[in-house]
Amino acid sequence: MNSNKVSEDHQPVLVTLDWGTSSLRGFLMDRQAGVIDQRASSHGIQNLPEPGIPGFEKAFTALCGEWLARWPNLPVVAGGMVGSAQGWVEAPYVACPADVAELARHAGRATTADGRTILIAPGVIDNPADAPPDVMRGEEIQIAGALAAHPALAERASIIMPGTHSKWVAIAASRITRFDTYMTGEVFAVMSKHSILGRLMTSPEEAAAAPAAAEAAFLQGVAAARDSHAGDLLNQLFSVRSLGLTKRLPGDVLKDYLSGLLIGQELTSGLARLRADAGDLPPIVLIGDDGLCNSYRRAMALFDVSPAALLGNTAPAGLFRFATATGTLDRA
Amino acid sequence: MNSNKVSEDHQPVLVTLDWGTSSLRGFLMDRQAGVIDQRASSHGIQNLPEPGIPGFEKAFTALCGEWLARWPNLPVVAGGMVGSAQGWVEAPYVACPADVAELARHAGRATTADGRTILIAPGVIDNPADAPPDVMRGEEIQIAGALAAHPALAERASIIMPGTHSKWVAIAASRITRFDTYMTGEVFAVMSKHSILGRLMTSPEEAAAAPAAAEAAFLQGVAAARDSHAGDLLNQLFSVRSLGLTKRLPGDVLKDYLSGLLIGQELTSGLARLRADAGDLPPIVLIGDDGLCNSYRRAMALFDVSPAALLGNTAPAGLFRFATATGTLDRA
Repeated sequence: MNSNKVSEDHQPVLVTLDWGTSSLRGFLMDRQAGVIDQRASSHGIQNLPEPGIPGFEKAFTALCGEWLARWPNLPVVAGGMVGSAQGWVEAPYVACPADVAELARHAGRATTADGRTILIAPGVIDNPADAPPDVMRGEEIQIAGALAAHPALAERASIIMPGTHSKWVAIAASRITRFDTYMTGEVFAVMSKHSILGRLMTSPEEAAAAPAAAEAAFLQGVAAARDSHAGDLLNQLFSVRSLGLTKRLPGDVLKDYLSGLLIGQELTSGLARLRADAGDLPPIVLIGDDGLCNSYRRAMALFDVSPAALLGNTAPAGLFRFATATGTLDRA
Repeated sequence: MNSNKVSEDHQPVLVTLDWGTSSLRGFLMDRQAGVIDQRASSHGIQNLPEPGIPGFEKAFTALCGEWLARWPNLPVVAGGMVGSAQGWVEAPYVACPADVAELARHAGRATTADGRTILIAPGVIDNPADAPPDVMRGEEIQIAGALAAHPALAERASIIMPGTHSKWVAIAASRITRFDTYMTGEVFAVMSKHSILGRLMTSPEEAAAAPAAAEAAFLQGVAAARDSHAGDLLNQLFSVRSLGLTKRLPGDVLKDYLSGLLIGQELTSGLARLRADAGDLPPIVLIGDDGLCNSYRRAMALFDVSPAALLGNTAPAGLFRFATATGTLDRA
């Protein structure tokens, strides 16, 4: 039994679940918000072992059953698509401005067959009368984690979360005050795979571009986007084809050029909106996949902008912060 | 035999082929460039009855065999993708500025097994050193037809050809001086079918929107695009989803809103470039499908711009003009 002894500091106090569309990640956490153990499965809410509520329970038990057999009284919290209309229990969007206390006040509550309660974080909606609405679900938890780990950012920051649907989130006094979603990653994937632009792209299996050539094409795309005018993207997309047809760019870097064009368009719009809101730029933080955050950082250099920080996965810290705000952690 | 008698004026003098990717259209034409008879098949260059040269010959014979059995000496000309690298014979792009005489000088030549020559129109390339290149193939023939039918436009005009790949073509002194392609139609199709935006769109089989609601959503999209700034499209695309999620727009008009956003983005960019080139706008002509040209006309009204003309299919007239320019018609 000695091997199972843990110091008071590293005693588990909480189980957190980052439960998205295509994956489920669980974290066993100590009272310093440290991760003692973690497990992952492919049981995202669109890939459950069976449909409906029993599917959520089975996926949860398969991932966390051993932890909870050993420490039966640990509270459990979850964030992400598990709280959507297609989730275990819907935790409706809370309105901007919202901080983690507001998320906690509107937590959803799933109950397992054996009576365990799981608190589920709501998403956030930005729904101004004079502009289209915007929604996030899962990112608010990562933001809570980033602000908990870097309190200096909580006063004023702009958080960029690159990805399928990139989020640009304005933070003031620990609150999400407004945000915009850019479909950059999805447009890249869909145009590469389903449009005529993919035809001339050499697949990586055929030939991998030299890293320097790929980087040059990426930055060429970023610069073209930066120097473009309103509405130009639909024309610039065709240049991926015409540059390939005329061999002004080789097929193995057309994907990099397209990626640069799209990220450059996102940065053009996002940075202009930040400047319009505030005059000077607030500190910019990138959260997400290392490679993608680094691509954004290199693209931002062409706009003479440097991020204040690049952060990795802040979801466990955010779920811990959410658990604290709900009071569930103190009661445990 | 009397029924087959035709006056001298309506005697066939030319067969023209508008041969694209997915369809083949043939026209039996008289000396006034009138269409006496026409036939169509699905034998576009990507859908031939068999691969390679024999496929082109078979498709040609199936469409025009009866005409040529009766009038064996008619010259034949063709335009469109049949002259591409994947066509019957490649007729390489000619450079801007280009008029129909230039197209004629660079005509490709396919020869059938029985010795008949078919002259094939080349495409046009706009390849400035300081900007990405652009290409067209097929549109140059429609433009030749439009200018032949409306000589007043030949001096100075901007021709817009809405579609999968919309073309904006500047005309001066009967020449194509420059042009831009916008992937408007393809982005609409790909995003509707393959991105998350399609999920909330009600299909027309489920419920057709009231025409007034569809038109209001279309114009709402156009206005949002008109009032947007550089790079905003990637964010505006997500609003198709968020307006649907929040039920601020019903599912049955989300397609119309997306269509308005994209056409509005194209017009924002295209009209700004015309003004940058010329100060005042040249006469604008729309060529293409009636419904689509009318959508563009209604969208242009939100920019306080009116087209000088809407033209239908000008390809037969353009092919006739091309045949005249090659001299093949006079020799017949």
